Amino acid sequence: MLNQMTGKQSIEFQEAPHIISSASVVGPKEGEGPLGEWFDLVAPEADFGEQTWEQAESTMQKEALQQAIGKAKLLQTQVRYLFGGDLLAQLIATSFGGEETNTPLFGLYGACSTCGEAVALAAMTVAAGYADYAAALTSSHFGSAEKEFRFPLGYGNQRPLSATWTVTGSAAFVLAPKGGHVRVSGVTPGCIVDMGTKDNMNMGACMAPAACDTIYQNLMDFNRQPQDYDRIITGDLGMVGQRILIDLLKEKGFDISAQHMDCGIEIYNAEEQDTHAGGSGCGCAAVVLAALVLPKLRKGIWKRVLFVPTGALLSKVSFNEGQAIPGIAHAVVLEHC
Amino acid sequence: MLNQMTGKQSIEFQEAPHIISSASVVGPKEGEGPLGEWFDLVAPEADFGEQTWEQAESTMQKEALQQAIGKAKLLQTQVRYLFGGDLLAQLIATSFGGEETNTPLFGLYGACSTCGEAVALAAMTVAAGYADYAAALTSSHFGSAEKEFRFPLGYGNQRPLSATWTVTGSAAFVLAPKGGHVRVSGVTPGCIVDMGTKDNMNMGACMAPAACDTIYQNLMDFNRQPQDYDRIITGDLGMVGQRILIDLLKEKGFDISAQHMDCGIEIYNAEEQDTHAGGSGCGCAAVVLAALVLPKLRKGIWKRVLFVPTGALLSKVSFNEGQAIPGIAHAVVLEHC
Repeated sequence: MLNQMTGKQSIEFQEAPHIISSASVVGPKEGEGPLGEWFDLVAPEADFGEQTWEQAESTMQKEALQQAIGKAKLLQTQVRYLFGGDLLAQLIATSFGGEETNTPLFGLYGACSTCGEAVALAAMTVAAGYADYAAALTSSHFGSAEKEFRFPLGYGNQRPLSATWTVTGSAAFVLAPKGGHVRVSGVTPGCIVDMGTKDNMNMGACMAPAACDTIYQNLMDFNRQPQDYDRIITGDLGMVGQRILIDLLKEKGFDISAQHMDCGIEIYNAEEQDTHAGGSGCGCAAVVLAALVLPKLRKGIWKRVLFVPTGALLSKVSFNEGQAIPGIAHAVVLEHC
Repeated sequence: MLNQMTGKQSIEFQEAPHIISSASVVGPKEGEGPLGEWFDLVAPEADFGEQTWEQAESTMQKEALQQAIGKAKLLQTQVRYLFGGDLLAQLIATSFGGEETNTPLFGLYGACSTCGEAVALAAMTVAAGYADYAAALTSSHFGSAEKEFRFPLGYGNQRPLSATWTVTGSAAFVLAPKGGHVRVSGVTPGCIVDMGTKDNMNMGACMAPAACDTIYQNLMDFNRQPQDYDRIITGDLGMVGQRILIDLLKEKGFDISAQHMDCGIEIYNAEEQDTHAGGSGCGCAAVVLAALVLPKLRKGIWKRVLFVPTGALLSKVSFNEGQAIPGIAHAVVLEHC
């Protein structure tokens, strides 16, 4: 048994697993955004031909997984374990998205950080020799998420400028001991951080302290400076959360303003698309990883990035009972190879 | 990197991690059941002194985790990763139960199979050298679960005899490379199995096919017969699901009727306590593992058991949209040592 523990809470893989393929599937609004041409599939309608938003989300997951497995030139049966999750109660998008795969499923929930959690666990599984191939799969859907967390769409509720827009999208990643040009060299799983923030229309503020905590710990555990990363990429802090994160990390002695990028800011043209603070959701970080981050790593344009999906641990019930919205963020170190 | 893959979907650990401590916390109804005296804490009231059922569930989790860590003679900070989950939307019992630990959290959802998923991932993490100590933590609460999945308690809905009673309980387990007298020698993570069953008052029937699938695969992957286990222990099939499971496995050539035990049947005196088909919930398998199964393994009364928590992937939304209730079951091989 190798000791691969690094610092307080990180893992540095002795034999780093590789992300050998990825695929992204999005809705029409995401297709109209600045990354539109880089997604593998842009659906003409957000319902993906299904009867409900939840089924549409499951269909996105199936498409993303099939495409990622296809790109890896594998059969579905060669993927030994699937790590998947979504934002919905009891993960129904994943339950019905993954049920035809006949692949053992580890269901995960980390709110919008789930993509980081899934890639981290898939990497840990492959690096330990538990699987030749493992897949990570996450999704979110604007229609199903608004219904789950806020107001029915038909209600036409107004949204403050601090609100984010849940991305309709799903991405899948296949990990293996070797292949491709991107490796997962380490992970920093995150703790829950609760600063008492209660505004479900300002998720960036809820998540920024958790992002700060995980990024700070990653820098400490690996003994790195921000400039050791070409980019430090959060999931969906949006424009409000980004400012808070940069300020919080400055207080801890690290200036990441030159390296920071946020998937939620990248995915939409906020002003033209009326998405306010940016995109959010499990699908946001996932599709930006597949469509933008991994291609730049594959080509070597970026050599090393810290990918930090961020989650707001919000539910209708806890929110209505007056509880705060804690945050969590899971970091994955990705390197060109 | 060791190849620890066994058969189609199992892992056989080269260096089996140990469950070095466990603790169980339950409500008064569970305390009145046949296992009452074996639980570490029986609360006098099901509200655990809190304002809401959800907060009560979080409090149970905190108590169980603290006790398990205390029994292991560890500090909270020595537990490197926590694998936790519950039945509620967005895992709020775990989010608020785990937020004060300052321990990196992998949030999991596998319905009532979550205890199996959590112990499996904690074992995989310790066996790979990613942590000296990892903890698994799950819970369910009758009050929060009925509200989440069925009817408000105040409505006084009648329940058919096939219905199960959600256990109010939480259990925590600490895993380490050595120590204690129970090791996790292998795991068989399960696939989603959907037979089209739609009755949320007969969860045993929804889960039995998944239990059958995982147990069958475990026997095949490890090349074992049912009698190679002292017990094959499902989570919460109840009396209806038990009959279906035994019949389904007979069709596949295995008779487990002599070995089978179900945590949901063990935890209550069904007739006296009016619990119909038995207990259920994430907490059911967890507290029975802590209070009944692990002590028998520690003493060597049982040498090897297959512990198979079973989950019904049910949500209000998917149920109301007419979807079926798929099942999933994750198996863990536990041995006296």
